[in-house]
Amino acid sequence: MATLCKPTVSVPEHVITMEETLELARAHHANHPQLPLALRLIGNTGVLTRHIVQPISETLKHPGFEQRNKLYEAEAKARVPGVVLSALDDADLTPADIDVIIYVSCTGFMMPSLTAWLINVLDFPSNTRQIPIAQLGCAAGGAAINRAHDFCTAYPEKNALIVACEFCSLCYQPTDLGVGSLLSNGLFGDGIAAAVVRGSGGTGVQLERNGSYLIPKTEDWIAYDVRETGFHFLLDKRVPGTMEPLAPALKQLAGLHGWDASDLDFYIIHAGGPRILDDLTKYLRVPPKAFRFSRETLTEYGNIASAVVLDALRRLFEEGGAEHGARGLLAGFGPGITAEMALGRWTSADRVPAAVEVTV
Amino acid sequence: MATLCKPTVSVPEHVITMEETLELARAHHANHPQLPLALRLIGNTGVLTRHIVQPISETLKHPGFEQRNKLYEAEAKARVPGVVLSALDDADLTPADIDVIIYVSCTGFMMPSLTAWLINVLDFPSNTRQIPIAQLGCAAGGAAINRAHDFCTAYPEKNALIVACEFCSLCYQPTDLGVGSLLSNGLFGDGIAAAVVRGSGGTGVQLERNGSYLIPKTEDWIAYDVRETGFHFLLDKRVPGTMEPLAPALKQLAGLHGWDASDLDFYIIHAGGPRILDDLTKYLRVPPKAFRFSRETLTEYGNIASAVVLDALRRLFEEGGAEHGARGLLAGFGPGITAEMALGRWTSADRVPAAVEVTV
Repeated sequence: MATLCKPTVSVPEHVITMEETLELARAHHANHPQLPLALRLIGNTGVLTRHIVQPISETLKHPGFEQRNKLYEAEAKARVPGVVLSALDDADLTPADIDVIIYVSCTGFMMPSLTAWLINVLDFPSNTRQIPIAQLGCAAGGAAINRAHDFCTAYPEKNALIVACEFCSLCYQPTDLGVGSLLSNGLFGDGIAAAVVRGSGGTGVQLERNGSYLIPKTEDWIAYDVRETGFHFLLDKRVPGTMEPLAPALKQLAGLHGWDASDLDFYIIHAGGPRILDDLTKYLRVPPKAFRFSRETLTEYGNIASAVVLDALRRLFEEGGAEHGARGLLAGFGPGITAEMALGRWTSADRVPAAVEVTV
Repeated sequence: MATLCKPTVSVPEHVITMEETLELARAHHANHPQLPLALRLIGNTGVLTRHIVQPISETLKHPGFEQRNKLYEAEAKARVPGVVLSALDDADLTPADIDVIIYVSCTGFMMPSLTAWLINVLDFPSNTRQIPIAQLGCAAGGAAINRAHDFCTAYPEKNALIVACEFCSLCYQPTDLGVGSLLSNGLFGDGIAAAVVRGSGGTGVQLERNGSYLIPKTEDWIAYDVRETGFHFLLDKRVPGTMEPLAPALKQLAGLHGWDASDLDFYIIHAGGPRILDDLTKYLRVPPKAFRFSRETLTEYGNIASAVVLDALRRLFEEGGAEHGARGLLAGFGPGITAEMALGRWTSADRVPAAVEVTV
């Protein structure tokens, strides 16, 4: 069965703290009528540090969509290969073992996507399938896991590589002055994540079931306004409340699998903002500690879009993983409003089989 | 097994003939030093008519990337639903039967992609999976078929909907004056295609095997330069010669399946330009008639990007289909340079089983 192995995550070297973010907001928007609200919302995110590909002084400039996009390409080419090789190494695989690359990224646009360049540069086989997805936003991390799961279900001996590359700081739009934009300016960070889904073998989350859910009639709640200046992020104020309609979808998926979403051993959840985690605590009736991996990602890196779920999973690995057979839920949320959900059990490749344990 | 059912294809109401295209090229580029070459290349495409979403007078204006992209969205919303409903009808399914929508389009950019809107407007189930792909260009038609095949291989009772929506005329860039751009201005057309891949049942191409192939070190041969003015199509002059390295990949895939790529019953090939079809005739040693469906698409609609393979397949259906069990090859080609290839057999849902035929 398909096993999601240990992700590698890399965040850029330039760091901005919450205090610096608040100070910048005060300095740039001193006369903004809703500045106090924006400051309060940013403070409430709990995002203490974010990592960005350029110093903040450069980040605040807008050199035009073309230059931004060229920078996206240059930074992706500089940073992605190392992350990919590390993830392959953690899965005990080499590029030659990979059958499909699922590359998700909503913060730059290239055609062909980075997949073609990666195949050439890292010597992936010429017959590696490419699934580049740019339009699922923060839900794309979950989608990548789920499409990799589907692929390995179809071809049980094959392996999938997932890459999530998000440079949210390259979507900063200085002329966007709505409260949602000011909040976003203090919420999103940059990060790259990669992980392998092995068709067989491997230590990590053995994927058993996946599902999607679209909240009806919300397709304009999270969206890009595409302009000459690039992608302008639109965030409806109803978005933070979406766990109320999404929690039942999580419960339903678990129920279909004979599991209780309120009684699982681990939770790897997209930390779009603090309210998501607070509300899931309430609606799923699980203790806040269940979301500690997601909370740590949010606190240390901010919302790194599609890379969040992979970073949260990395933190579970670094805590030592879970008991063999422990049941878990993974979920990404993003534009649509879409949830991409998965259920799986922790598995250890080198575990002594139960029968042997009994006879020792 | 997964069966690719009859595609529905719709082209817009505004028509431009080759003679009009040549006349426009002469009028707009009278002093261009390579005008004779450009005219000859356009003439050689064999594209007699193309269909575009606006009158040519509007098409030649560039109102800015934002307006272009808003027009893409408006035209897609106006034109896609009818095509989708017709394709569902031809597969004897309703929206409630669909488990995944694979939406491919490289000529406009929306986040969320049109999938979310389609699910809401056409009442697809809220748990329909969404796979939007914007970065595989003309290869995306083949990729969509192959990812649908993979999905139905993983979940044999499920059904996939493929939509290819391409408004190439909205990527016209009046300031791009290279010969490749002038040629492209006379080659590409607009079109929308949709088809269902049924997990079981259905008449059409029963998909048996698929594969991808990337020609090494060619990722900049077909590419978008992403600028404030939108997507600028870059076409390397070596592209028309790519069947020489791709024909062996087609042969190899067929060989893996125990088939001979030179001896199949039908060919559904991306008609990027006339050279592709001419060269495949040579390298696969098959008669030109084998590519009649692709040639007709090119002649009547131009290169409609990811929709070409679906339109070529539609023409096979309209010719009456093939014999039950007839073996065929489908292939899309695009940026990367990537080939997305599939092998399948014609199957008829309502065929009288062989045993019954014998006893009658």
